[in-house]
Amino acid sequence: MSIPDIVIGRLPLYLRALRRLQQESNPVTSSHELGRRLDISSAQIRKDLSHFGGFGKQGTGYQIEFLIERLEAVLQVNLEWMVAVVGAGNLGSAISHYRGFQDRGFRIAYLFDISPEKVGQRIGGFEVLPMSGMSETIRRDGVKIAMLAVPAENAQFVADQLVEAGVQAILNYAPINIIVPEGVQIQYIDPVTHLQRMTYYL
Amino acid sequence: MSIPDIVIGRLPLYLRALRRLQQESNPVTSSHELGRRLDISSAQIRKDLSHFGGFGKQGTGYQIEFLIERLEAVLQVNLEWMVAVVGAGNLGSAISHYRGFQDRGFRIAYLFDISPEKVGQRIGGFEVLPMSGMSETIRRDGVKIAMLAVPAENAQFVADQLVEAGVQAILNYAPINIIVPEGVQIQYIDPVTHLQRMTYYL
Repeated sequence: MSIPDIVIGRLPLYLRALRRLQQESNPVTSSHELGRRLDISSAQIRKDLSHFGGFGKQGTGYQIEFLIERLEAVLQVNLEWMVAVVGAGNLGSAISHYRGFQDRGFRIAYLFDISPEKVGQRIGGFEVLPMSGMSETIRRDGVKIAMLAVPAENAQFVADQLVEAGVQAILNYAPINIIVPEGVQIQYIDPVTHLQRMTYYL
Repeated sequence: MSIPDIVIGRLPLYLRALRRLQQESNPVTSSHELGRRLDISSAQIRKDLSHFGGFGKQGTGYQIEFLIERLEAVLQVNLEWMVAVVGAGNLGSAISHYRGFQDRGFRIAYLFDISPEKVGQRIGGFEVLPMSGMSETIRRDGVKIAMLAVPAENAQFVADQLVEAGVQAILNYAPINIIVPEGVQIQYIDPVTHLQRMTYYL
């Protein structure tokens, strides 16, 4: 079963909204309710979820717990992924303190930095490890996911090292596009691009 | 001239890549060079940029400085927008320390927090201001853009206050969808949704 990338891209939003509904003690929801919360048309939501088959019958809505389990399985976040964070500056530090990863499929396992002054410090419960041991650790523990919080000028170099050590998915916070081999996943977070997308409309 | 949202969404990426090329002392680039750096097809880039007319002639490439000026004008980031940051926790603190806003059209002007222990502290060069004065300050100074770095459970309430005070664009870091009136821009940054978009492919 091949699911279009654009549909996969929306599933984490559905999952997040469903978890929220579950926290609010709802057992059932509808494409209309989800659509209203996400500002996505209910027709789009029904179509997206139909890729996975067997959700709810017309008129009875979606069983939230079942749908969450199904989406978590599809996205493979019903298991816990170890994540390496590279860069222990302000951003890497904020990431390491963030408590929102653990119940959504991810566990920060390592925090690396190149600076001798940072190495050995404790940040957000992690001991900052030297970059010199990064490749070996990642290879040894089979870490597949990394978050890049290094300066733009170092991002490509660090990404190359990560990929070479076996990382297959990179979330890059450095404000620069980086090039990864075919088959390696890359996503970007750059607040300025988001801000610039809005100023056009102001 | 109406430009599709999806094209507007790519312009910040073009702008970022062009600034990079400029830093590397290139006066001219091509849709192929840009495409290679951004992993976007050169045909797509030519088509996107054709919306603005008059860029380069076939075979001579794009004048980087001219194209940057043009894109900055289109996105309205040739002026400097004041930005209010709400939430002075680890994330709000990292945002306030980030030096990447100022030469891309934005200046963090205010940092607000609800916690009495945080108010009055200096973070990243800003004095943390109390939420109680937020609406008045935003209205008085005509702040149009805010970044939300508050817990999910407070995000909607704070967004409502911001909009009521005149904010027209919100970049929301809280892991929850929020509802804003028609005409108010909203963008989201949630690292977990990005990570979950990648795990499907691992």
